[in-house]
Amino acid sequence: MKAARFHAKEDVRIEDIEEPTPGPGEVKIRNAYSGICGSDLHIYFAPESAGISFDEPHPLTGSLPPQVLGHEFSGTVVELGEGVDSVQVGDRVAVWPIYYCGECPACEKGMVNVCRMISFHGVMSNGGGMAEYTTVPASKLHVLPDDVDLRMGALVEPMAVAWHAVERSGIEAGQTALVAGAGPIGIGVWFALRARGVETVIVSEPSAERRAAIEGVGATTVVNPAEEDLTARVQAETGGRGVDVAFDAAGVGVAVTSALGELTPGGEVVVVAIHERPLELMPTQLVMSETAIRGTLGYLQSDFDAVIQAMSSGGYTSEGWVSEVPLEGVVEAMIDLRAGKRMKVLVRAGA
Amino acid sequence: MKAARFHAKEDVRIEDIEEPTPGPGEVKIRNAYSGICGSDLHIYFAPESAGISFDEPHPLTGSLPPQVLGHEFSGTVVELGEGVDSVQVGDRVAVWPIYYCGECPACEKGMVNVCRMISFHGVMSNGGGMAEYTTVPASKLHVLPDDVDLRMGALVEPMAVAWHAVERSGIEAGQTALVAGAGPIGIGVWFALRARGVETVIVSEPSAERRAAIEGVGATTVVNPAEEDLTARVQAETGGRGVDVAFDAAGVGVAVTSALGELTPGGEVVVVAIHERPLELMPTQLVMSETAIRGTLGYLQSDFDAVIQAMSSGGYTSEGWVSEVPLEGVVEAMIDLRAGKRMKVLVRAGA
Ligand SMILES: [Zn+2]
Ligand SMILES: [Zn+2]
Ligand SMILES: [Zn+2]
Ligand SMILES: [Zn+2]
Repeated sequence: MKAARFHAKEDVRIEDIEEPTPGPGEVKIRNAYSGICGSDLHIYFAPESAGISFDEPHPLTGSLPPQVLGHEFSGTVVELGEGVDSVQVGDRVAVWPIYYCGECPACEKGMVNVCRMISFHGVMSNGGGMAEYTTVPASKLHVLPDDVDLRMGALVEPMAVAWHAVERSGIEAGQTALVAGAGPIGIGVWFALRARGVETVIVSEPSAERRAAIEGVGATTVVNPAEEDLTARVQAETGGRGVDVAFDAAGVGVAVTSALGELTPGGEVVVVAIHERPLELMPTQLVMSETAIRGTLGYLQSDFDAVIQAMSSGGYTSEGWVSEVPLEGVVEAMIDLRAGKRMKVLVRAGA
Repeated sequence: MKAARFHAKEDVRIEDIEEPTPGPGEVKIRNAYSGICGSDLHIYFAPESAGISFDEPHPLTGSLPPQVLGHEFSGTVVELGEGVDSVQVGDRVAVWPIYYCGECPACEKGMVNVCRMISFHGVMSNGGGMAEYTTVPASKLHVLPDDVDLRMGALVEPMAVAWHAVERSGIEAGQTALVAGAGPIGIGVWFALRARGVETVIVSEPSAERRAAIEGVGATTVVNPAEEDLTARVQAETGGRGVDVAFDAAGVGVAVTSALGELTPGGEVVVVAIHERPLELMPTQLVMSETAIRGTLGYLQSDFDAVIQAMSSGGYTSEGWVSEVPLEGVVEAMIDLRAGKRMKVLVRAGA
């Protein structure tokens, strides 16, 4: 079968590899769509900093490069391994791609999304979404209802990252939010906030393309912080109170420190982006208004369930911010993404 | 009457001033003890950075220097103003010293401890604890039970700062904590944790005097981080899990960033200290374990109630870390405190 495999830094090949066979408890999936995200760019351009080991097999999955890419994917069940009765052949599914140890302090608390040994299907595992087929444990499948198509199914994963961040923030209907950054995760935060009944959402984004994209999905209060006074706008939109929660989906220090200044007393900045550089924090800024900075990462299976339900209720659209490429276009798409020329790209794998 | 009054930077005078008379709703108190804390040192050594205005009367209290010092104080009610029936002459009291506006976003949420216009009795107000008498609104009084003496009563305020931080952390009996810094607030955090049933408390403190002080009140796991591997100790004491909450009562950047590394997944660093310098934070450190940094400040009246109740239950001692000076010794004591020669000093005001 055809697959996009990572071999080494800046070396991803489209090659013909053996079709996988589902072991006991596993399911074989004909992949449909598989998203490319920042983690894939990390793997491609800086694998060591992405935690890819070329020497030691991953302690949980035993995998080593070459690695089929694709951890954000949807597909159709085509074969059941021994003992699987939770899904049926023909089910359309999204795959919760996490492998966790079950024993570390995080797993002990049910926070398997921050497991010490975590791996992802399509990152360090026996396969991935950017191939015609893959096999995964049946326990990782989330069946898509009829009104959620396979294209949307591949967006469950990135939307779950954002949903999880919103969930962890504890924000409630009637409260107010700031979203810094309108890339795919910022857009996902916007969808998740709306699904929870948060009406007042101010989006801050310096890029005109990204502002247009989030306006395209329905955001009405979108600020270019390079031209407009964000604080004045936040004050105006929140009746002088500041926002209850600010989400950093930008990944730059200034997004976090400026967001801190937009919080209402007791508010929180939730960092859902990955930062490459340290930032300078005045702890007194947290103390004087009893505010907080919280990090969030990944998603639980419950976040997948919630996103799929919200998609089924019509809460999501892929229009205006998602584009498609064939499997052969994956490297070009990664180069485009890195250059900021695309927002979200779905690779048509076996589709 | 005799009073210690702040006039200007490094200018505090013991002088004879007029005795105050309680207005309607106010109470006249014969002050007993009044603590000196970091805020007083700020006022004395760097009044502008402490927010003292020499030109504009405070918007809530109308006050301007000269200012009677002393915001952590206890005393005995000697006279009731018109309409006061919540206390009686002879009641021994601690004074909740906050003046708040009642209208800002913080006050709206009941977070009067971070009111935008906040002032404190003894900082910017018509009097303070370092005088023979003062007058305060009756609503600010907390009556001390028979088994809490006036000396302990003056410690309610600093202990409430620590209690409030522990309360905001949400830590529960059976969880684990790290306390960075064993000054008066660190000691207060230790007392508050014990009162809540938190048994595993690791204290980190480089000063031998402060380690001895917190050991003197009962702490058993006290680490000198300059000589012992704090992480190894935390791992040993928590079964390899890390602590649920770490309290920064040190006020130095490294205390916060090193505390982050000692947290269990989902844990929190609570900053209760005032920092004078920014710190360098890697947001990824928060993201990878879904941890948080939270600031806390001051106290609510409910914290005063809780501390007084815990004092009445025998949960506090002033032995080994609290010393006394007469009113005339206040300047010398401030110089000693700044040099780290004393831990906590109570001024005998009208006592
Ligand atoms: Zn991803
Ligand atoms: Zn684990
Ligand atoms: Zn104080
Ligand atoms: Zn206020």
